[in-house]
Amino acid sequence: MAEELSFPTGIGTSDADQIRLLGQDLAADLMGKVGFGELAFWLVAGRRPSPGETRVFEAVLVALADHGFTPTAIAARVTYASAPESLQGALAAGLLGGGSRFLGVTEDTGRFLHDTLNNSDISDVEDLATHAVATAKGRIPGLGHPVHKVQDPRTPVLIAIAKEEGFYGPHLRLFEAIGRVHPAILGKTLPLNGAGVCGAALADLGLPVDMLRGFALLARAAGLLGHLAEERRTGLGLEIYRTVDRNAAYVAGKD
Amino acid sequence: MAEELSFPTGIGTSDADQIRLLGQDLAADLMGKVGFGELAFWLVAGRRPSPGETRVFEAVLVALADHGFTPTAIAARVTYASAPESLQGALAAGLLGGGSRFLGVTEDTGRFLHDTLNNSDISDVEDLATHAVATAKGRIPGLGHPVHKVQDPRTPVLIAIAKEEGFYGPHLRLFEAIGRVHPAILGKTLPLNGAGVCGAALADLGLPVDMLRGFALLARAAGLLGHLAEERRTGLGLEIYRTVDRNAAYVAGKD
Amino acid sequence: MAEELSFPTGIGTSDADQIRLLGQDLAADLMGKVGFGELAFWLVAGRRPSPGETRVFEAVLVALADHGFTPTAIAARVTYASAPESLQGALAAGLLGGGSRFLGVTEDTGRFLHDTLNNSDISDVEDLATHAVATAKGRIPGLGHPVHKVQDPRTPVLIAIAKEEGFYGPHLRLFEAIGRVHPAILGKTLPLNGAGVCGAALADLGLPVDMLRGFALLARAAGLLGHLAEERRTGLGLEIYRTVDRNAAYVAGKD
Amino acid sequence: MAEELSFPTGIGTSDADQIRLLGQDLAADLMGKVGFGELAFWLVAGRRPSPGETRVFEAVLVALADHGFTPTAIAARVTYASAPESLQGALAAGLLGGGSRFLGVTEDTGRFLHDTLNNSDISDVEDLATHAVATAKGRIPGLGHPVHKVQDPRTPVLIAIAKEEGFYGPHLRLFEAIGRVHPAILGKTLPLNGAGVCGAALADLGLPVDMLRGFALLARAAGLLGHLAEERRTGLGLEIYRTVDRNAAYVAGKD
Repeated sequence: MAEELSFPTGIGTSDADQIRLLGQDLAADLMGKVGFGELAFWLVAGRRPSPGETRVFEAVLVALADHGFTPTAIAARVTYASAPESLQGALAAGLLGGGSRFLGVTEDTGRFLHDTLNNSDISDVEDLATHAVATAKGRIPGLGHPVHKVQDPRTPVLIAIAKEEGFYGPHLRLFEAIGRVHPAILGKTLPLNGAGVCGAALADLGLPVDMLRGFALLARAAGLLGHLAEERRTGLGLEIYRTVDRNAAYVAGKD
Repeated sequence: MAEELSFPTGIGTSDADQIRLLGQDLAADLMGKVGFGELAFWLVAGRRPSPGETRVFEAVLVALADHGFTPTAIAARVTYASAPESLQGALAAGLLGGGSRFLGVTEDTGRFLHDTLNNSDISDVEDLATHAVATAKGRIPGLGHPVHKVQDPRTPVLIAIAKEEGFYGPHLRLFEAIGRVHPAILGKTLPLNGAGVCGAALADLGLPVDMLRGFALLARAAGLLGHLAEERRTGLGLEIYRTVDRNAAYVAGKD
Repeated sequence: MAEELSFPTGIGTSDADQIRLLGQDLAADLMGKVGFGELAFWLVAGRRPSPGETRVFEAVLVALADHGFTPTAIAARVTYASAPESLQGALAAGLLGGGSRFLGVTEDTGRFLHDTLNNSDISDVEDLATHAVATAKGRIPGLGHPVHKVQDPRTPVLIAIAKEEGFYGPHLRLFEAIGRVHPAILGKTLPLNGAGVCGAALADLGLPVDMLRGFALLARAAGLLGHLAEERRTGLGLEIYRTVDRNAAYVAGKD
Repeated sequence: MAEELSFPTGIGTSDADQIRLLGQDLAADLMGKVGFGELAFWLVAGRRPSPGETRVFEAVLVALADHGFTPTAIAARVTYASAPESLQGALAAGLLGGGSRFLGVTEDTGRFLHDTLNNSDISDVEDLATHAVATAKGRIPGLGHPVHKVQDPRTPVLIAIAKEEGFYGPHLRLFEAIGRVHPAILGKTLPLNGAGVCGAALADLGLPVDMLRGFALLARAAGLLGHLAEERRTGLGLEIYRTVDRNAAYVAGKD
């Protein structure tokens, strides 16, 4: 069948002489002139970030790059130990754990704050935070952390950076207000999760809330490469496997 | 079974008050002070890069981030169209194409140059390049490009950046010599592939050649996020699927 | 830290002399005596299916194994073309498209019927179907098909097999009733999607509705291996890539 | 650009009334009449297997479905615990470990035997086995097993099934001969690995050696679904994660 095909894209293309990316000449205008974090922002947002935006954005990526032996790091390491010829498979296996429970808090928090701001005409931030906490029935994304029970060390640092750069906006402001008002409503005091603060900061940069998980995944890709480089030098993947395997307690199945 | 377990790592850990990463205090020492590309280098190499190394490294990541509608971009887009609830699955599907044929040239070139330099005592670079081309039987990683038949526009730019920053080392030098000597041996003139030059530049930064594919994957992760953000706005994945499906020509199987 | 570890499982274990699977001796009791579909049922349900259950179950797997050039097949093929050294990566890339839009209908339908049956005390099946269609606001999983506008050829065959084997139960009965009552409510007549009927049949076999997508994925794994075996012989992946790439229409980005 | 496109395939297609698969009418000719294992063989080989071939083939799939807490099972479980909304992601993560070290022995053995048979004109099987062992320099795929030091229980059972069904061919014969001759050459006696015998049996069925890993992956997909169904009921993934995480020994990185 003869047909007219057209696949429009604004990301990239190339011909014999030039590579275009985001409307720029890759070699002449981007290489050596644009940082990698800056480019990642640009690719998703469709606009070049300012230096201040880039600093906040890269601080978020640095904050989310690693958190020790998470399920993502374990999956990547045992997969690499099992199929070392495929680094891409090990990286992919690690990223596949970037779902609702472990890496989801960044996007969940950004979306919760975004929706709260857009679905209400309460103008006072304390009132809005009180309303949000009261109606969320105790399940506020980004509130609480399994390890950092009192304060997540990333939280004040990221808020300070956002203020320094002039990108402390409505999402961070609402999230901090939630931090102040929730104890009276919930009857307990929970810290603002650093990954949640990252989601608020990304939303204040104007990045689409549906893509916030993507930045967490990009950050984690760097962390996983660190784990895989270490795994290549001093393998733990097989030791993790053996620890589980030799402590298996077999419970005979039914017939 | 009671046992002593120990999983040593130098990547990251955390306790109630602090998150450590690479021997640093994440919040106090890294966030806002270290760029994302710089951190990725540090995670894999185990040492902090200098500003010059960071610039060369980020230029490589920018050069490799995207190359249009590659198989990796297509796999990511059709997967996202089919399972939009799982951004991590679409990203992983895209990265899984980062194997020997499309993203492999960076690592293959770095390794070829590294092995040539380490397995020979020829000191003159032209002689070494001649020897390498003559013994490789016409299959030199990084030589030639399917689109850029005369010159890959990334090649001179990356070499210039490496020279500016003082990281033009033996791998880039040998690769350029191969570019000069191969026409007389092979009877045709091929350009130095930009992705191959990236591999040479990463090797000159002292990064482990076994991990070079990892950097190509990290760069591509950013490019794939750009494709997926665009896919979210203006879906092409279903159109790609329909183009293939409606032009299927069914060849009846045997039996 | 010395600690008592125990990872209980009823799936499998092995020692020097024996491999146990599901409480059986793998070599003595299962190999050559249990079919592969039968084993897959047993692994998920925790009980051995009867021959009649096995026939219905395998008919479902056969029905779901392939549906031509779906996004899953395309992702698998372009990934294999790009990284042919990693068959597992190509298969994984294909399965990652098995999400909400393409392979989800089996699980969605089974769950919808299951929930309707469990959340109502309406005993008459026509009344229950009417209630379900009326309250679902026009979005009934498993109703309608993009290609089979009048009848999905799998539907009557699978229902007949379930009846023959005595496993035509409440889920299939409710789904057929929905097929009868919906035109009067929705004002249009839609066919029962064959993949939806598969979900109803699996639910009638007592399989857990949360795992129904898993069977669709298992079935599709076989179909994808067929595509990859064909791709190995007569590659289409690169042709799909080139078709998209050469019809790219570059829309210059902003900035 | 208007162009003639054609993507030929012999796997499957469909129109409004019919679904074709492998040259058959899916609903009329396959559902309820062909087993799932039988279909998987047909999809890859392009021909319908006989009942005897199907029995050998399904015995292989049953033999390879699970082997306890392997890296593949661990990766699938921790990924499911981390992203329970994406069953396809957990299954894919598990399959990605199906590479050279853990699931590779089936294909490696089949290929080694295939290549030995095709690259030699030695007709006596004992002589050929002696030649193969002597020239392989001690690294014979399929010889030895980490747990079954004396005998892999799957080995005699699968060989007996192949003989019963008349598919004990040159690959199994050569592998058994290698089992007899290697002690005199290597100075130690190793068992024939059951997964390696599976590769020999698949090769004797005439299946393409490049796709043998695919069958191991299909078998393992069923085993992984069993692990994931169990994980859904009694989660171990988080306990595996916590075991690793709380026994992390932090080794401060360099700067």
